[in-house]
Amino acid sequence: MAQRYVRVQTGDGQIHYGLLQVDRQVRPLDAPPWLEGQPTDFDLAPDSYQILAPCYPSKVIAVGKNYANHAAEMGTPVPKEPLLFLKPPTTVIASETAIQYPFQTGQVDYEGELALVIGDRCVNCTPEEARTKIWGYTIANDVTARDLQKKDGQWTRAKGFDTFCPLGPWIVREINPSARLQTFLNDDSNPVQSAQIDEMVFSSDVLVSYISQIMTLLPGDVVLTGTPEGVGAMQIGDRVRVAIEGIGHLDNFVVARESPVAKKVEIP
Amino acid sequence: MAQRYVRVQTGDGQIHYGLLQVDRQVRPLDAPPWLEGQPTDFDLAPDSYQILAPCYPSKVIAVGKNYANHAAEMGTPVPKEPLLFLKPPTTVIASETAIQYPFQTGQVDYEGELALVIGDRCVNCTPEEARTKIWGYTIANDVTARDLQKKDGQWTRAKGFDTFCPLGPWIVREINPSARLQTFLNDDSNPVQSAQIDEMVFSSDVLVSYISQIMTLLPGDVVLTGTPEGVGAMQIGDRVRVAIEGIGHLDNFVVARESPVAKKVEIP
Repeated sequence: MAQRYVRVQTGDGQIHYGLLQVDRQVRPLDAPPWLEGQPTDFDLAPDSYQILAPCYPSKVIAVGKNYANHAAEMGTPVPKEPLLFLKPPTTVIASETAIQYPFQTGQVDYEGELALVIGDRCVNCTPEEARTKIWGYTIANDVTARDLQKKDGQWTRAKGFDTFCPLGPWIVREINPSARLQTFLNDDSNPVQSAQIDEMVFSSDVLVSYISQIMTLLPGDVVLTGTPEGVGAMQIGDRVRVAIEGIGHLDNFVVARESPVAKKVEIP
Repeated sequence: MAQRYVRVQTGDGQIHYGLLQVDRQVRPLDAPPWLEGQPTDFDLAPDSYQILAPCYPSKVIAVGKNYANHAAEMGTPVPKEPLLFLKPPTTVIASETAIQYPFQTGQVDYEGELALVIGDRCVNCTPEEARTKIWGYTIANDVTARDLQKKDGQWTRAKGFDTFCPLGPWIVREINPSARLQTFLNDDSNPVQSAQIDEMVFSSDVLVSYISQIMTLLPGDVVLTGTPEGVGAMQIGDRVRVAIEGIGHLDNFVVARESPVAKKVEIP
């Protein structure tokens, strides 16, 4: 099995990057692995840590309509250039944590995606150079309030709510270019999305090159590469899984977001 | 004169938050002022530091069409709710530094704006609570590649290029609600934009409340409050100044961005 790079928090609040072992012990690294973090000389027992999103990006850059069949289901053409948008870092959550359903929306969709983790400062890169800046791969769910996406025009609100970017559970260094991506809703045997990542319109290398000619990518930044067809709504209480061959699966569940009004009547 | 809060870098590469004195000496603080930073016991001489943007936000949230006369000049109605977009933190630059004109665009516009600096974690706040989370005020230029904004639909690329968010030069704690905002292009006596900040459609408190019901605001985050009418293009070689009464002025100049092609033929 490929080496799995995690980020974990221990009971004392400390955060460690680390290597996940087969017995689920974690060997901490003394720095993020893309900053040459080296293994320390102790292990964390499986019951002594909580898994976090595997990185905390300074920015999450995402790409719209990067699978032709998803563009078609949205009733729009495939863009001639990558269509970029941003999700704020406050959207990022770990596997096995809650997606909060906001009170402002009536439709919250899953979007299973391959995520790229940038390992090195990247500006004005060619696709060939960009390839060397992609440190590894993880899984993302680009959660989207579909009704607000249509209403606002700009996608910032629809894709920017707290908890709208489940990420993880870990990073691997390599991925099979034709690996299958699947999303499951409450049923781990019948996928609602299923595609090979080589069906992307713009490849990972081209995306990173394109973005780097606009904004400098920094170590730990994340690029979401788009979702295939089959997007659909989640309800409060649902469980959603995004799985990618050679990485693993990202599992989350949906709860109601506390509303400002609810907060006001909270008894101290 | 109101206390001016700066962030500076000294010759040894160290970065300090600090208080700017009348003689341009800087008294460093031992932490960001919104995190209770206290004055140290030494001063930095005027020739020993370079001024940086006054904070380094984890996110920059901006608001479109928040002055009725600017919405009108763009040929669009005033939005019924604040229209949000994000600029990546890599857009942020200091006063007296260069805006890079990208090779991908043929029209780069200035947009002078009042910027709010958040002092405290802010989630699901009422406007009254939000008011207490605004630590101070500074000046921003929401630089925009107007042609790409129209072409892409999503504003991420058009507003997301490196150097597209001049910010500063410093933060003040209070501002007159009817302070005048003016933008000057190559001519410091004839403004190209001029408005009072109380002409905003949605006030600062309402904006911060609205945003906090979507995404958690963190200390040091920045909210750009929209630009008044009079936006227009800048050319390479131009100097642009955004001035707000009671704060000061933010000065930048425009240079060509190094292109990937130019980079390839660079002689080592």
